[in-house]
Parts: sequence; C-alpha cells; structure tokens
Amino acid sequence: MREVFQQELREVQDRLVEIASLVAVSIENATQAFNESDVSLAEMVIADDDEIDVAAAELDELAINILARQQPVARDLRIVVSALRISASLERMGDMAEHIAQLARYRFPDKVVPKSLRGTFAELGALDVAVAKKLVELLKHEDVRIAEEIRNDDDKIDALHLSVFDKVLGETWKGAAVNTVDATLASRYHERFADHAVSIAKKVQYLATGDWVPTDD
Amino acid sequence: MREVFQQELREVQDRLVEIASLVAVSIENATQAFNESDVSLAEMVIADDDEIDVAAAELDELAINILARQQPVARDLRIVVSALRISASLERMGDMAEHIAQLARYRFPDKVVPKSLRGTFAELGALDVAVAKKLVELLKHEDVRIAEEIRNDDDKIDALHLSVFDKVLGETWKGAAVNTVDATLASRYHERFADHAVSIAKKVQYLATGDWVPTDD
Repeated sequence: MREVFQQELREVQDRLVEIASLVAVSIENATQAFNESDVSLAEMVIADDDEIDVAAAELDELAINILARQQPVARDLRIVVSALRISASLERMGDMAEHIAQLARYRFPDKVVPKSLRGTFAELGALDVAVAKKLVELLKHEDVRIAEEIRNDDDKIDALHLSVFDKVLGETWKGAAVNTVDATLASRYHERFADHAVSIAKKVQYLATGDWVPTDD
Repeated sequence: MREVFQQELREVQDRLVEIASLVAVSIENATQAFNESDVSLAEMVIADDDEIDVAAAELDELAINILARQQPVARDLRIVVSALRISASLERMGDMAEHIAQLARYRFPDKVVPKSLRGTFAELGALDVAVAKKLVELLKHEDVRIAEEIRNDDDKIDALHLSVFDKVLGETWKGAAVNTVDATLASRYHERFADHAVSIAKKVQYLATGDWVPTDD
C-alpha cells in the first residue's frame, strides 16, 4: 500500500511539473506576442490555456481520488492538499499569461505599450518567464534554494510594477487613456503571475522544511 | 463516528458562513469608504483583512484535520475539499475589498474616481455587497436559487466593468492618468470580487446537484 502511495505521489508531482511546463511555454509565448505584437502567437496562447485548465482539473481529480483511496495522514496528507493548491495557482498563472496575450491581440497591429514602457515590460516578461522556468525546476527537485530565487525575482517584479505607475503618473507620460489602461492591466497581470509563483514556492518550501515535517526529511 | 463527522462538517460550514460574513462587512465598508472618501473606514477594512486571513487559515487547518481523522470518502470528501477551495476564494474576496479600501486611502481626501464614474462605481459596489450577502445565505442554506442570483449579479457587474472602459476610453473622458489607472484597477477589483463569489456558488451548486452526489440529496 505504502509503495503504491509513493508511486501515486510521484505521479502527482510529475503532473504538477507538466502543468508548470505548459505555463512556462505559455508565458514565454505571451511575452513574445506582447513584445513583438505577434497576433498568431497570442492566439495560440489563448487557445492553449484550455489545455492547462484541463490538466489542472485532471490533477485535482487524481488528488481527490488518492485522498479517498489511500487516506493519507500527516505529511502525506499535506502533500496531497498542497498539490490541490499548487494546481489552482498554476491554473491562475495560465490565466495571467492568457490575459497578457489578449492585450497583444486587442492592440494588434499596434504594440500594447508605447516606446517609453517597452524596456520595462521586456524586463517584466523576461522575469516572469524566468520565474516560471524556475518553478518547473522547483517542483521537479524540491530544492529550496530555487524557492528563494523565485522570491528574489518577485521582489524585482514588484519594483518594476511600481515603476510602471511612476512612469504612467509622471510628467513625461504622453500616453492616451488606452495606453494607461493597458499598461495598468499588463503590469498587474505580470505582478500577479509572479505572486502565484511565490505562493507555490512557499508551499514547496513549507513541505520541505515546515515544523510539522518529520525530522527524517 | 459518523455523527461526530456530521458535527464537524457543520462546524466547517458555520466557519465558512462566518468568514463570508466578515467579507460582507469588509466589502460594505470598503464600498462606503470608496464612495464617500472615508479614510478611517478604509483603514478599518485594511486592518480587518488580517482577521479574514487568520479565519481562513484556521478553517483550512480544521479541514485538513478532519481529512486526517475522519478519512471521508465520496461526497463527504468532496465537501471537505470544497471547503478548502471556498476558503481560498473568500480570502481573495477579502483581499479585493482591502485593495478597494487602499485606493480610497491613497486618494484621500479626494475621491478615487471623477464624477462621471461615481454612479457606475456606486452600482458596482452595491452589487458586490449584494453578492457577498447572498453568499452568506448560500453557504448557510445551500439554496441553489441563490447561486443563480449570484451569477445574474455577476453578469451585471461584468457589464458595468466593461462600461468603465467604454467611458475611460471614450471621447468625453477628461480624467488625468491617475484617474485612468485608479478606475482601471478599481473596476478590476470589483469584477474579481464577484468572480470569486461565482466560483464559490458553482462549488455549492455542484455539491448540491453534481452527478457524483447520491440521489438522497
């Protein structure tokens, strides 16, 4: 029974890694679509989000199934419950990538943000992509140093997010209302994307080091 | 054992109702703070959000504890897992109310949005408050007609959310960039608040009518 359970936990972990990989592809494509005003890439991100939603729902069913059949307790139970929460966060990260792609599609053939903000959004996008890739590694290896890196990247993203508002509210901002709206939403989506990654990182870190974890960990 | 379990499920339900009630107070105060530029009310909402976070975390611990001790299966297991998800959504609804209150605080003594948008935001706020109160009733009585009402309110909120963008992007908009940013964010927070309520309503509806529910329900 125990061995079957360990095998099922590995299956859960593999699926989380898979979903995180889909999210990483999604944010990478969304970032490129956003930066380069690539409408077909944007449409691909939007279409592919269903795949993430389905994978997350299937993982949830598997986790509930494991709870019902294996009736885990203590740390094992925490792992399965955490998987449900991580899946929900990954699903939202996919939504954020989709929202970023939608902005690119709406404004095509124009770029979403004016020149003065493109550098900032290129950085935001690159950091979100880096965070998503690190999340894949974190879920694969449960290395808490990666969780720390994700938190550091999130600090940089928060600073860039604030700098977008500084620019938009500054005296040199020449953007029309539509640019202001788009920059506000795009910045928020980038920031929320990383917030979800941090929330996942905290869960993995907690599972690896939390006070309810047996000392054999 | 079964009776103890039923009693524990009632405890879970009572706590969800309590948290939803806190969220309803929070959005009601946030709405008033936003509409009337009441900074002390805004600060109360911001301070009180911790209470919602703690109550949600405690409910999660109780739910995990029930999973460990009672090892529920089938519908009982779904109920406990749903409670975890509902708690996460309520926690986010509290965050949205807090964000709305923060906007009121930032702009005090000014109002957050200019006159031309105040009617729309008064409606958005009133609908969010109505949705939160209905959610309390839904969690208390599991009456699926209330779930339906929440979905209808959400449709109205979505329409108002879009109308904010129509106004901000329209030719008559005279707002400065700061008004555009605030209106964009405030509208998004109101819309997300209701989205979470719909997501909870769907879960309750599913629990009451879903195909894995025994016919005795």
